[in-house]
Amino acid sequence: MLKLFYAPGSCALASHIALEEAGADYEAMRVNFADNEQRKPQYLAINPKGRVPALVTDRGILTETPAILVYISQTHPKARLAPLEDPFALARLQSFNSYLCSTVHVAHAHGGRGSRWADEASSLEDMKRKVPHNVAACFELIEGSMVQGPWVMGEQYSVADAYLFTVAGWLQRDSIDIARFPKVADHHRRMRERAAVARALEQESASA
Amino acid sequence: MLKLFYAPGSCALASHIALEEAGADYEAMRVNFADNEQRKPQYLAINPKGRVPALVTDRGILTETPAILVYISQTHPKARLAPLEDPFALARLQSFNSYLCSTVHVAHAHGGRGSRWADEASSLEDMKRKVPHNVAACFELIEGSMVQGPWVMGEQYSVADAYLFTVAGWLQRDSIDIARFPKVADHHRRMRERAAVARALEQESASA
Repeated sequence: MLKLFYAPGSCALASHIALEEAGADYEAMRVNFADNEQRKPQYLAINPKGRVPALVTDRGILTETPAILVYISQTHPKARLAPLEDPFALARLQSFNSYLCSTVHVAHAHGGRGSRWADEASSLEDMKRKVPHNVAACFELIEGSMVQGPWVMGEQYSVADAYLFTVAGWLQRDSIDIARFPKVADHHRRMRERAAVARALEQESASA
Repeated sequence: MLKLFYAPGSCALASHIALEEAGADYEAMRVNFADNEQRKPQYLAINPKGRVPALVTDRGILTETPAILVYISQTHPKARLAPLEDPFALARLQSFNSYLCSTVHVAHAHGGRGSRWADEASSLEDMKRKVPHNVAACFELIEGSMVQGPWVMGEQYSVADAYLFTVAGWLQRDSIDIARFPKVADHHRRMRERAAVARALEQESASA
């Protein structure tokens, strides 16, 4: 059985939703960020990076959301969570996921995790001030040229939708009104109606 | 024919090497960062993010290194540049590539591109000071638990090697001696001996 290590409110939600959509046989394991559990030896033995998500499989442990999302799609092909038969379409999905992890997540992280990249209090404040502008610029691009509609990849729902839902869920924390991005806002609303999304959210809040 | 938009010294080198290793039919198109060409309308029409790499295919344009690397691997299967038949092994490769783009590249970028995330001169200096520590911490993890040897994924050379070679090429700019990481240093030396790597480097320096 798969084990997903996650923290509520983190990007691990994307993998959590994907496991639910896939109908996977898995167990969700909460990592307590408030107790700094992700930095303790027991968790570092699972993921030396001290981050979530980590997916324990019978062949070893996987980390990094884009890798986990395609892995879940490939190992649960009946759920049709990625265009596995079409290298170009898969690359488009991967490009979207890669943008979320390397640019959008990073832009957001400068609000609460600025100490990763600077030490002075004035620098952390400076970074925080810039977050709403930077994250909104990312979502303008997502709204304007990335979401094909009704789902990220077009007619077919995919793991990219779970990832967009997760990252768009941080907009409020960054003082950005999701209504500025009508396609993203509508996507968010439709995602909440999906049973798999509701189950993942319920599990994460029940254990929090 | 494929067209790769790149800038010398950028992460596009990974895709450039992959195209050479694949024996792909492609043309390398230089984007002049000194002239800020990546921000001009002509290039923004190709990649609205104003970044490299961008790969023009007969079905559309692809961006983001991890997506392009797997695409090149899938469309040139004879070159065996990724473990396409094994979802777990592919996920390990993708996890490695994702770490490079979302953590290592980002850690490095705070040296020269800090203005993406903060405005004050003092913040940019603060960020710059932290870069050698942060990038070295990433390479300690790469050296200690990621490079299986002799290649990143073990016995089989893959696109992950092209990406590691590219990012390790920035260590000197970040005032880090590659010799601190013996496996990475040995990998770098062996990469330079590959004909495909030499061709990609020669093309990039000839046009610079």
